[in-house]
Amino acid sequence: MVGIIMGSQSDLPIMEQAANFLKTLNIPYELTVVSAHRTPERMFDYAKTAQERGLKVIVAGAGGAAHLPGMVASCTILPVIGVPILSSNSIDGWDSVLSILQMPGGIPVATVALNGALNAGILAAKIIGTGNAEVAEKLQKYQEALKDKVLGTVDDIKAHHPNQYDK
Amino acid sequence: MVGIIMGSQSDLPIMEQAANFLKTLNIPYELTVVSAHRTPERMFDYAKTAQERGLKVIVAGAGGAAHLPGMVASCTILPVIGVPILSSNSIDGWDSVLSILQMPGGIPVATVALNGALNAGILAAKIIGTGNAEVAEKLQKYQEALKDKVLGTVDDIKAHHPNQYDK
Amino acid sequence: MVGIIMGSQSDLPIMEQAANFLKTLNIPYELTVVSAHRTPERMFDYAKTAQERGLKVIVAGAGGAAHLPGMVASCTILPVIGVPILSSNSIDGWDSVLSILQMPGGIPVATVALNGALNAGILAAKIIGTGNAEVAEKLQKYQEALKDKVLGTVDDIKAHHPNQYDK
Amino acid sequence: MVGIIMGSQSDLPIMEQAANFLKTLNIPYELTVVSAHRTPERMFDYAKTAQERGLKVIVAGAGGAAHLPGMVASCTILPVIGVPILSSNSIDGWDSVLSILQMPGGIPVATVALNGALNAGILAAKIIGTGNAEVAEKLQKYQEALKDKVLGTVDDIKAHHPNQYDK
Amino acid sequence: MVGIIMGSQSDLPIMEQAANFLKTLNIPYELTVVSAHRTPERMFDYAKTAQERGLKVIVAGAGGAAHLPGMVASCTILPVIGVPILSSNSIDGWDSVLSILQMPGGIPVATVALNGALNAGILAAKIIGTGNAEVAEKLQKYQEALKDKVLGTVDDIKAHHPNQYDK
Amino acid sequence: MVGIIMGSQSDLPIMEQAANFLKTLNIPYELTVVSAHRTPERMFDYAKTAQERGLKVIVAGAGGAAHLPGMVASCTILPVIGVPILSSNSIDGWDSVLSILQMPGGIPVATVALNGALNAGILAAKIIGTGNAEVAEKLQKYQEALKDKVLGTVDDIKAHHPNQYDK
Amino acid sequence: MVGIIMGSQSDLPIMEQAANFLKTLNIPYELTVVSAHRTPERMFDYAKTAQERGLKVIVAGAGGAAHLPGMVASCTILPVIGVPILSSNSIDGWDSVLSILQMPGGIPVATVALNGALNAGILAAKIIGTGNAEVAEKLQKYQEALKDKVLGTVDDIKAHHPNQYDK
Amino acid sequence: MVGIIMGSQSDLPIMEQAANFLKTLNIPYELTVVSAHRTPERMFDYAKTAQERGLKVIVAGAGGAAHLPGMVASCTILPVIGVPILSSNSIDGWDSVLSILQMPGGIPVATVALNGALNAGILAAKIIGTGNAEVAEKLQKYQEALKDKVLGTVDDIKAHHPNQYDK
Repeated sequence: MVGIIMGSQSDLPIMEQAANFLKTLNIPYELTVVSAHRTPERMFDYAKTAQERGLKVIVAGAGGAAHLPGMVASCTILPVIGVPILSSNSIDGWDSVLSILQMPGGIPVATVALNGALNAGILAAKIIGTGNAEVAEKLQKYQEALKDKVLGTVDDIKAHHPNQYDK
Repeated sequence: MVGIIMGSQSDLPIMEQAANFLKTLNIPYELTVVSAHRTPERMFDYAKTAQERGLKVIVAGAGGAAHLPGMVASCTILPVIGVPILSSNSIDGWDSVLSILQMPGGIPVATVALNGALNAGILAAKIIGTGNAEVAEKLQKYQEALKDKVLGTVDDIKAHHPNQYDK
Repeated sequence: MVGIIMGSQSDLPIMEQAANFLKTLNIPYELTVVSAHRTPERMFDYAKTAQERGLKVIVAGAGGAAHLPGMVASCTILPVIGVPILSSNSIDGWDSVLSILQMPGGIPVATVALNGALNAGILAAKIIGTGNAEVAEKLQKYQEALKDKVLGTVDDIKAHHPNQYDK
Repeated sequence: MVGIIMGSQSDLPIMEQAANFLKTLNIPYELTVVSAHRTPERMFDYAKTAQERGLKVIVAGAGGAAHLPGMVASCTILPVIGVPILSSNSIDGWDSVLSILQMPGGIPVATVALNGALNAGILAAKIIGTGNAEVAEKLQKYQEALKDKVLGTVDDIKAHHPNQYDK
Repeated sequence: MVGIIMGSQSDLPIMEQAANFLKTLNIPYELTVVSAHRTPERMFDYAKTAQERGLKVIVAGAGGAAHLPGMVASCTILPVIGVPILSSNSIDGWDSVLSILQMPGGIPVATVALNGALNAGILAAKIIGTGNAEVAEKLQKYQEALKDKVLGTVDDIKAHHPNQYDK
Repeated sequence: MVGIIMGSQSDLPIMEQAANFLKTLNIPYELTVVSAHRTPERMFDYAKTAQERGLKVIVAGAGGAAHLPGMVASCTILPVIGVPILSSNSIDGWDSVLSILQMPGGIPVATVALNGALNAGILAAKIIGTGNAEVAEKLQKYQEALKDKVLGTVDDIKAHHPNQYDK
Repeated sequence: MVGIIMGSQSDLPIMEQAANFLKTLNIPYELTVVSAHRTPERMFDYAKTAQERGLKVIVAGAGGAAHLPGMVASCTILPVIGVPILSSNSIDGWDSVLSILQMPGGIPVATVALNGALNAGILAAKIIGTGNAEVAEKLQKYQEALKDKVLGTVDDIKAHHPNQYDK
Repeated sequence: MVGIIMGSQSDLPIMEQAANFLKTLNIPYELTVVSAHRTPERMFDYAKTAQERGLKVIVAGAGGAAHLPGMVASCTILPVIGVPILSSNSIDGWDSVLSILQMPGGIPVATVALNGALNAGILAAKIIGTGNAEVAEKLQKYQEALKDKVLGTVDDIKAHHPNQYDK
């Protein structure tokens, strides 16, 4: 249902966060390396066959002059989520952020934060959830769990600092 | 089906591009002003009731310290598309881009380019299209029309410049 | 008298500097975690009840797309001091600085330097001090102590480097 | 009660926005030019006598390498609000923003957005309002008026765009 | 001998500067529009057939998230010269500069300055000149003409300003 | 005594500000165009003969990849003052600022603000003034005149705004 | 055939990547240190004699205010490839990138990514390859090897992650 | 003859490089801490008495919102050399660079590179050297020694890499 691709094996530790989130929600995904610059034919074929192979969303991560998300978006009508990755020799991540975000009119890429693969996974689930009540419900629970986790830290901190609000 | 909101009436000329695209594809939308900072209750209420009111996607545009897309995303499980807008007194757009894009893990915003409301509209349609074959087909035609428009300019330029490739 | 809040427990080591300063001046404070994105209702409630609970100033720290200070400011007339925090995956701190500083007209946030929680604590004390002679006096002494500390380093360095000025 | 100073007469059109806001709330202010670099003695004297002359807050605006707010803060215990101004030959405002915001530990400046003199005026009023119920009440009304102004634009836009939410 | 391509017809006024330079040196060129995002197949075909069609160098200009130069480089072994173009809605040109310059190891793009199409034309000629004595000689003359033009301005200015050096 | 050079005739309106200041102080200067990139031999010769021709200081202005100040500094022991100029196609002036300022250890350039040719002229005079009492005295008067000009604007503004400080 | 120069011995670990690539392709090169600022005569002589000594391309790497590539380009008609290097005390590499990239019209430098010496070597080979079928063929094989390397990582990852596409 | 001051003892390891250079050239200097923000009176007094105490040049280093060099320049007609220092919590050094460099017209600061205290020392010597033949001669020798050091590394590298130029 969700295709997760990345420009290089070195992006794997970041991009696995998207896969892990989808796994938690039992949303099927596939994950592989597709390099825009080193395997352009593979990228084109992957993008062009994505819809007919049953994918609903593509998550694409890349660093530096990151062309993968935008080029995939140019070859499919599926929504493409772009993950800018802070690679070595990047100029503080600005290169990947801008080369994914600043797409021209006509070909959008849904860009998330630098190294934001977890959010890319969640966004993919939200898109699936627009047509799937079960996924939507799980997302609701996830969002509540985020809240509970924060409230847990409130309790931790209360032990060491005054807090009139939560007394 | 799609909620289009913006932080200020001055964002309307940009944000109407999203509405106009959806209109072309016959995708129903609503459009209004919701200010995170000046009408926070309205924002909360809008976001919290969005799903039950039948919205599938929310497109939110804002400039400067642009909190609207992220705050809306924190109150709904619907996918939220953020449009950074180059407002007056913005520092070249960096403020709106970064305050929309750099969301923390757990609460994604699908960010498009600076002033990229057209792409936000297309992205909303792509999300709708994951569960709607008619919309998907129209998107296919739109993408082909983009190509044809480029090929039209190829012909224009051929009249004034040598071009062996397209002879 | 002063509410110190932060978006995440990971901000605590920075934000404790504000608390520690207030403690030195015997200014009462409360400190807790309030996440704009993960606990939006808590944030709204905290901000809306702040004035009636007797707070005079709120110090709010957050990283990345840092919406906490600005959103709190939108729900209270108390002065809000924003502390941009350099979180992991931040783009060198620019995201938190700009998303706190660049508030639209009508809803100010008193922004301090990146990771500048100490200065946020001092600024809170200065605000309290506008109506409290005892606090004002302590601030005067603090400012003199800063001077004395510098003069102490002058003596240290004099031992190793020529200095005609302080002979 | 509020001292409004600026580095150059060319900053006046921006800085008058702070004065005008205070006038609306009947908060007394004085406004003049104090240049850190061209009239350093005047700046020192202004800052050192501010508290005894009855000022509660100082609003200081400056462009380029903007040293006025920080230097004033070094000579008084009053809270100082800094307004970065986009002057000619500025590098897009970054110089004034950073030279006001990034103060070292010990000497805070409450920085507002680029050209954000209106917000500086509001922030000054909020500080006064911590000890003045009448000002606090006026601020409450101002914040409600902001909301009403937004709701007015909602009505305007409703005439031309579908809006199910506000029907 | 030189292929000049650009992502959009709006890039033509800039990119014609490359064509005009080559015309001056009698170096044959072709010029057309090839959009990476709107005509990806055309781009692939153009790049893959470039060498066999007799091209020696490709000059590619694009703005925003500028993927054209890098993607063309991924499909040919010809040297590709990239021209970042300052398009509307660009963030001051940083997006096109970084998305052309920061190519990963293995796939270089010879990047010139923002809007530097003239320099792209000269660089193309220099590359041709490495194997063509006639072109090399013309380049030598061009570089001398640049010098003469400067010396002409020296004479102009001498009329109004003291200049002991050139007396 | 002072050599004023610039990379292009288009820099003249800015660079004349340095000349005009020196003229006011009766400090002899010469002014001409020396292009690092288009007339490299002229630049080398100018720099190498500067000291023996009696120059004490060189002021060099350039835009974009601004190599003139640094290269001149590499060929003379005279102090070189660099003026970054905001030329067309510059990326907001960052290119000229950084390529003049960030010289490696061993070869300093005294850099002034973007377009800061007036300050370059004053700095040149200050350097001359270290060994010339008459110039030093004139600089003292200039600095006092700056103060008087500010005080004049204080009077102007007093007519329209309350000002307790200067009553 | 290819001259590889760098501003400082500390650039050697980066710049050797260009040399190593050329060695793999049996393209003769020479490599040495030429400092624009510390050995300006050597730089001029190196550049002016490059063509007659049989060089076809020059690769020049430098950090900070990086004048070497541009100054060499001003003294030869050979194509010059510039490698911005992230040296100590660089401001995140921006200084070297901009002072190499932003050359004025007339004197191009073919700029590659920050620390992109490998790509500089490949680009040099591509330029040689425009007139040398053997080199061109080797480049073709190199580009195919890049692809094979990616496909190898695809297999690695397949072992741990679902991948319907490559089944 | 040269006053070396810095805003904080933590700047000492950098600023000692200026002192060490002057020591090598037997140019007398004094070195101490003068904080613009924590010891403003000391700063004013230091600056105002500098000329009569016999100083010819002042070297001032500071980090963050670095007001020391500019404020000292506003209180003396001596040339002031500013050294931006990369302090902790700095935003990559941009704050200190811009708050020293971007001085308004009338009050120049001769700015050197980030952490460029060595160059500040050399620049101070060059200024002294404009009226002191002995210092000038030593500077000439220093500049030649820089060249010799580079040529030494040429020999080192020759042992491992082909170098036709220096054979």
